[in-house]
Amino acid sequence: MTQIQVVEKILSANDRIADENRAMLDAAGVFALNLMASPGAGKTSLIEQTVKHLSNRLRIGVIDGDIATSLDAERAAAAGAVSMQINTGGDCHLDAVMLHSALASFSLNDIDLLIVENVGNLICPANFRLGTHKSVLIASIPEGDDKPYKYPGIYRGVDTLVINKIDLLPYVPFDMENFQRGVEILNPGLLTFPLSCRTAEGLEPWLTWITESCS
Amino acid sequence: MTQIQVVEKILSANDRIADENRAMLDAAGVFALNLMASPGAGKTSLIEQTVKHLSNRLRIGVIDGDIATSLDAERAAAAGAVSMQINTGGDCHLDAVMLHSALASFSLNDIDLLIVENVGNLICPANFRLGTHKSVLIASIPEGDDKPYKYPGIYRGVDTLVINKIDLLPYVPFDMENFQRGVEILNPGLLTFPLSCRTAEGLEPWLTWITESCS
Repeated sequence: MTQIQVVEKILSANDRIADENRAMLDAAGVFALNLMASPGAGKTSLIEQTVKHLSNRLRIGVIDGDIATSLDAERAAAAGAVSMQINTGGDCHLDAVMLHSALASFSLNDIDLLIVENVGNLICPANFRLGTHKSVLIASIPEGDDKPYKYPGIYRGVDTLVINKIDLLPYVPFDMENFQRGVEILNPGLLTFPLSCRTAEGLEPWLTWITESCS
Repeated sequence: MTQIQVVEKILSANDRIADENRAMLDAAGVFALNLMASPGAGKTSLIEQTVKHLSNRLRIGVIDGDIATSLDAERAAAAGAVSMQINTGGDCHLDAVMLHSALASFSLNDIDLLIVENVGNLICPANFRLGTHKSVLIASIPEGDDKPYKYPGIYRGVDTLVINKIDLLPYVPFDMENFQRGVEILNPGLLTFPLSCRTAEGLEPWLTWITESCS
């Protein structure tokens, strides 16, 4: 009982800071995404492609959450984004307080779009609202078609789904119908973008959605 | 300070139960593995292949940790193992207490090898000893070659590394030298098995290692 109360207290404190983050973003006219996925599903690659194709139309900021290194922030910066790294020091997710500290040293008035790259993990990030406008989950073809059934929490909670690495469909067993049936049970009508960050196939509808969301 | 003390207390309680688990396994002459990986790297596929090839020589038990469903335990059972599912109810890792409860209802005298499939996650499982004899990490080629650098904790702590999905090397960018350099920094001389669970390429040395560890 005590443990449950402590957890509820932490989550409600997180929600309060998440609301403050949202207010800061709205005041600056910034549209923000919380990008979640398991390790290696393509979060940084999707950011690279998004920045590469949209930086002539949108001013883009990236905040990268990782337990170690600044490799992802460096990749985002190389692609042309204003980027910043949050090292969680071992924590398996970002929370609203970590994002709040990062936002405080970010020039929000100089960007239109903020992409927050969460820590690579399909479990813990789902429990912490950050205050972003949309949460996006990236599934990856080589992970297999059973992931919605096995990680229902994160599939249930997101606003948008990207299915990355569709170029690998000929080389791995992946039953798209079984995958989509699982998604539909958990999150009916979920907005979904199948694409490949490597070949750029299917990227256009994703870019259009981002652009329209920012206007 | 208080938070650190609580965390230390939890971890030392976990270690005590882990030691009890080890004593139970040793008393029954069971060799046990803690299998860890990110979602979709191939934990269940490696179990299926191991059971398929070794069940004529070894009696194999499997305990599957997942946040939801019993899909993995069903796959292990279909392959011919005595299997049991632990649903963590949302928790992002197994701990020694969860394994202890499972071991209590497992006929340890009827098996030679126990494979514990941890929850799909590269972060949290690394912090909780279970009492198994060896911890095995599965890396997967499509996850990318930067994973040792980004998830150093788990690479530092394991006894054995499996590099799965080597059949996908022609189709994805993966710099094996960069990957192995990262592993070598964190865990010099780490025993490594590159293989493909799908094509069975490279499986033989892994099976030999398992068989010799059980004898």
